[in-house]
Amino acid sequence: MSDISLALTNCARAVEEKLDELLPTILTPEGEVVEAMRYSALGGGKRLRPFLVMETAKLFDVDKAYALQVAAALEMVHCYSLVHDDLPAMDDSDLRRGRVTVHKKWDDATAILAGDGLLTEAFAVLSDQATHSDMAVRLKLISGLAIASGAKGMVGGQMIDLSPSRSSLDLEGITRLQALKTGALIRYACEAGAILGNAKAEEYEALSLYAEDIGLAFQIVDDLLDHEATPEETGKPTGVDSDAGKATFVGQLGLENARAKANELIDSAKSRLDIFAGKAQLLRDTATFIVERRS
Amino acid sequence: MSDISLALTNCARAVEEKLDELLPTILTPEGEVVEAMRYSALGGGKRLRPFLVMETAKLFDVDKAYALQVAAALEMVHCYSLVHDDLPAMDDSDLRRGRVTVHKKWDDATAILAGDGLLTEAFAVLSDQATHSDMAVRLKLISGLAIASGAKGMVGGQMIDLSPSRSSLDLEGITRLQALKTGALIRYACEAGAILGNAKAEEYEALSLYAEDIGLAFQIVDDLLDHEATPEETGKPTGVDSDAGKATFVGQLGLENARAKANELIDSAKSRLDIFAGKAQLLRDTATFIVERRS
Repeated sequence: MSDISLALTNCARAVEEKLDELLPTILTPEGEVVEAMRYSALGGGKRLRPFLVMETAKLFDVDKAYALQVAAALEMVHCYSLVHDDLPAMDDSDLRRGRVTVHKKWDDATAILAGDGLLTEAFAVLSDQATHSDMAVRLKLISGLAIASGAKGMVGGQMIDLSPSRSSLDLEGITRLQALKTGALIRYACEAGAILGNAKAEEYEALSLYAEDIGLAFQIVDDLLDHEATPEETGKPTGVDSDAGKATFVGQLGLENARAKANELIDSAKSRLDIFAGKAQLLRDTATFIVERRS
Repeated sequence: MSDISLALTNCARAVEEKLDELLPTILTPEGEVVEAMRYSALGGGKRLRPFLVMETAKLFDVDKAYALQVAAALEMVHCYSLVHDDLPAMDDSDLRRGRVTVHKKWDDATAILAGDGLLTEAFAVLSDQATHSDMAVRLKLISGLAIASGAKGMVGGQMIDLSPSRSSLDLEGITRLQALKTGALIRYACEAGAILGNAKAEEYEALSLYAEDIGLAFQIVDDLLDHEATPEETGKPTGVDSDAGKATFVGQLGLENARAKANELIDSAKSRLDIFAGKAQLLRDTATFIVERRS
């Protein structure tokens, strides 16, 4: 196993354990929504966003326990967005991470509530002093997450993705959609490490730009996988976006140019990390991993 | 107009203006979700929860601008819960506050996203220094809101309300359901004033108990109105809960005893305020208002 695969696997295990601890089963009648939250949050996945929190925090020698709290909170928000996006009213997906989606296992109402519960719990976690002893840091983390995931971030991106004009977006429009829908949370993942580490302005900026590059590359690769990969590889249906007549990077650029654009972004992402020298090697490897992944 | 009606009307106007300011229209493609958020948040209503924040904060001479921020954030959470509860997958309501519901005016996806956006924005508002200069106060407000509205509060209550066992709940079960579904946020409204005001432990406790009493009374009166009032009075369908075979306070206690129980709770609520003497008169009037309201 390569260093990056091993590091991702180890991080995913730590995040899974932390989520299990932060979302304990409860036996009172409302416990069913907690089970649905646990099913969504403990369902595996690459845990890329948590990994970015952990690795960027490491650049500043942040206490690992702090970073893990933020990583888990961020993953709750990511999972909530998946649960809501998978609903029949949205993307109508039955399969996620190789398992049936929450609304198929329970029902739409439980899925809506489980998503609501995960989003809410993320803010509870970030407000907890276990996340950082410095109150200013906690407030910056909360404010940053709220902006990244709200109507001017992830929720706004999903709104565009569902809008009638979605099919006719040009390259600029798709890029903006991606920056909101998936980019904002990936950027937050990297900025969170900088916030936790009281980074200097240029360090924060470098990580923010790195995140923008890998975020866009990530989406282009998603589009490529939607064309090239099998459902067995990705753990979810493929060919969905192009079948739905959605404008995609591949549709706009063609397979070859899309692949070239992704590679170019990854090179750019790596160069953003120059100021961290050797300490950022795993983040450079992460960029490579994103463009080479098959799921 | 009575003092309490006038005070409620004035507060509702101030909250409406604050929400309008905190949720500005945006012209980019994702602006449609903001319009749905605005439609929900600016749709009138009694604004009882914001009023409780404002009045409890007043006991401690809290800066009105601070209290208004918290009131608006709390109302965002209340509105998000209404938008999601009204969805076909949940209560399937077409009418709210005398207007068509968000999912009828737009669609289910937009309603889900608008709710998500309002919940997220509430935390953005509370993390802002405009909400209080003291970071510890802001963090307590955030943590309190997350607990009151999450899986062990409002979301948990809604889960019970939708569960198969809902129809066979006994009086204790309905009381617990109410304490979670609507009680937790009403209690938070009153505790928020105490948090903003750095209240002493016994003052915090008194407001918390006051809130529990009026919260339960509020729900009993809701059940009474569901039996006795017309849709024209309440601005939403009536007779819904009993028609759906849900166990209600009226079903368990009968009309007369339910009304007596509500009155008893209101008396209890008022007595909780003794330590605030004359300063809490409007909060006592609020308790009376709750039991006498027709909508």
